[in-house]
Amino acid sequence: MPEGPLTATVTHMSETSTVRVGLLGCGTVGGALVALMREQAGEIAERTGVRLEISRVAVRSASKDRSVTISPAVLTTDPASVVSARDVDVVVELIGGIEPAFDLILDALKEGKPVVTANKELIANLGAELYAAASSSGVDLLFEASTAGAIPLVRVLRESLVGEHVTRVMGIVNGTTNYVLTRMTEAGVSYAEALTEAQNLGFAERDPAADVEGYDAAAKAAIIASIVFGTRVVAGDVYREGITTITADDISYATRLGFVVKLLAIAERSESVDGGPDEVNVRVHPAMVPSDHPLASVRDSFNAVFVEGDACDQMMLYGRGAGGRPTASAVLGDLVDAAINLRQGTHRPFVAPERRRIRTIDDLRTEYCINLDVVDEPGVLASVAGVFGAHGVSIRSMEQLGLQHEARLIFITHTAREADVQATIAGLRSLGAVDSVNSVLRVVGDED
Amino acid sequence: MPEGPLTATVTHMSETSTVRVGLLGCGTVGGALVALMREQAGEIAERTGVRLEISRVAVRSASKDRSVTISPAVLTTDPASVVSARDVDVVVELIGGIEPAFDLILDALKEGKPVVTANKELIANLGAELYAAASSSGVDLLFEASTAGAIPLVRVLRESLVGEHVTRVMGIVNGTTNYVLTRMTEAGVSYAEALTEAQNLGFAERDPAADVEGYDAAAKAAIIASIVFGTRVVAGDVYREGITTITADDISYATRLGFVVKLLAIAERSESVDGGPDEVNVRVHPAMVPSDHPLASVRDSFNAVFVEGDACDQMMLYGRGAGGRPTASAVLGDLVDAAINLRQGTHRPFVAPERRRIRTIDDLRTEYCINLDVVDEPGVLASVAGVFGAHGVSIRSMEQLGLQHEARLIFITHTAREADVQATIAGLRSLGAVDSVNSVLRVVGDED
Repeated sequence: MPEGPLTATVTHMSETSTVRVGLLGCGTVGGALVALMREQAGEIAERTGVRLEISRVAVRSASKDRSVTISPAVLTTDPASVVSARDVDVVVELIGGIEPAFDLILDALKEGKPVVTANKELIANLGAELYAAASSSGVDLLFEASTAGAIPLVRVLRESLVGEHVTRVMGIVNGTTNYVLTRMTEAGVSYAEALTEAQNLGFAERDPAADVEGYDAAAKAAIIASIVFGTRVVAGDVYREGITTITADDISYATRLGFVVKLLAIAERSESVDGGPDEVNVRVHPAMVPSDHPLASVRDSFNAVFVEGDACDQMMLYGRGAGGRPTASAVLGDLVDAAINLRQGTHRPFVAPERRRIRTIDDLRTEYCINLDVVDEPGVLASVAGVFGAHGVSIRSMEQLGLQHEARLIFITHTAREADVQATIAGLRSLGAVDSVNSVLRVVGDED
Repeated sequence: MPEGPLTATVTHMSETSTVRVGLLGCGTVGGALVALMREQAGEIAERTGVRLEISRVAVRSASKDRSVTISPAVLTTDPASVVSARDVDVVVELIGGIEPAFDLILDALKEGKPVVTANKELIANLGAELYAAASSSGVDLLFEASTAGAIPLVRVLRESLVGEHVTRVMGIVNGTTNYVLTRMTEAGVSYAEALTEAQNLGFAERDPAADVEGYDAAAKAAIIASIVFGTRVVAGDVYREGITTITADDISYATRLGFVVKLLAIAERSESVDGGPDEVNVRVHPAMVPSDHPLASVRDSFNAVFVEGDACDQMMLYGRGAGGRPTASAVLGDLVDAAINLRQGTHRPFVAPERRRIRTIDDLRTEYCINLDVVDEPGVLASVAGVFGAHGVSIRSMEQLGLQHEARLIFITHTAREADVQATIAGLRSLGAVDSVNSVLRVVGDED
């Protein structure tokens, strides 16, 4: 394992097979990438004939302490100079956020330099613009690390499943919320307690909104939907509910009924009602998943993506969705690809994005678990069931638990339309015998 | 979805982007591939710019009924004519077995035609020879479907993890044995009952030896080890134990201790004892896996491969390991790759295989669960523990269950050397107080 300053490895490189990398940003992931490249450069060269050399690194402050030692000759505080440098063949963008990352990547692509990025926000919002620039320059834009960290989701969806009619992708793509839900399930703690614990362990930010409100997962859902359905979906197109309203009660009823609660990012193909091209529904919300479903066993801060297709049937990819070294591992896989393609004068095929209609949440069809408290009197169940029936929502199972003068009823429906279920809930709320509708959770993974 | 005879789709193809496929074998997988290509050819062309056309199909009998209709003009009983045909650009080999598949593939590669194969036996035994021929012709030899069906293992190991220092791969790569073990665990049935059930459901052959004795898994272990460690491992190099001696008792003790029993194919990197290059150990045997390990939740006939690496930490790929359509999906992913590379005049990079030393099973270091019956007398535990100690095997936990005049002792060891454990077993067997050593199972996935 070659260690030491980056320049030390240069002497081993054969000029013809060296690909020079310009790195934008050297924080947690960037530092891990530099370390990983030092460890693995020799083996990668043996395996692929390409030796990767980091020739320039743009940082915010040249004097900051870093986890890796980088020669001052390589460091700069001017990222644009890295993009345009003659000794940079491939650009790796690890700054994050929209600007200046967007302009820097665009400039690199326009100069004919392949780009590897881990920037979820940028790809989820302006991916199509960047993709078009890459396509018109005929160079790679690779972004495996933008979604689900080390999990090789983008490559598998784009390449392994290129011949597959994918019907649905369901992912646990946010480690913070999965940790919180795992603790609520396994330790029986409240949402607030689990979140505090996650914050103390560094799994959750002090301001956890991006995670717990589902924004992070929604951006990833947009990227997944774009790749798998060859269509343009941006973060704002994604229906989104977070986990902040999930109670310990919801979790314990789910357990009792044989389910676990997970925050899922779902991209689903739906036949158009008017006979047009297939539509897409893309959404993030907590869901009840059967406890023998592969997603149910994804614990703690791990991520996993479950893919259903006509030919492959079911597939799941599981791994670390975040963290410096796992993310750097995904960046490095892309970087080797970009370097090989550059040397061979090729790139991955570009797909012209198609704008499919995105189905609204009202038209969603799934199963629902509805938990309500009613007055414990004869005839109440009949009137409650009547509300379901009036909106065309068919009941699959019902469990009643007595609580002194009240009863708690837990219904699981057959597949129903979201708008009909919302109308049912409104109807139940206006029924005198219903004291409260405690929760409504979608049920997935149990459809057949 | 274009349906109908293969020739019907030809009219839609632009001549410049058509890649003509010669198919060798049209059984379960071949028929599924033809159907899948008909369904997906249009979408693949849109996504990649390459339109796949099946120009020739070699079959054993031209008159046999098939699940798909193939134009008689395309069918032949002479596979060599398909390989050499001017209108075949890429060859897909789905005949299986060593001969004539080996010679046919070799001829195709020598003619500069890329080859896609699902042939596990061939790749596991003569992969290096074929690989060398592909390398010297500069064309792709792709074999995703040879190992774990639709699971994109080969691509992920070769490409996504190209920069990863992989330390261990553990796979459930045989669906028959996983089905049998799942039934033994969940329904409490005996090995014989579960096997009969699997045979009646078509999950197991009438002669189940290739599955239950671990030969199928050993071939896949050889392929996995070859890819992940860049070294040459053939099926015969793999240490192998099957599941035929696993009893209902073994399963129930494992459950009681918080484990499940799985047949695992393991390829592991081990530091050399003499300071030389890393060694490889490759083995197939039943193992006790902690019940919260991701591999533990892989049920029925599903396969999964769990990868551990220095940077990616833990990753698992889960899916269908067999079956016509899942396997065809993997073949089609490779075929699209080969077609794109052919059109671009490139191929995946070739790695010069390195012959690493393969560690013998005697030098394996893992944990063990040892189940024995002893005479229930004072001092017995001391003499039993003395045998462990005399061979340097350290005990992590012990549970004693009384059975009238006997006691059953279940030990779990700390990490120990296989040869020392075997010597311990021999020592226990010669101890007067030991009535029987009921089972010895390796424990994995719980090392830290």
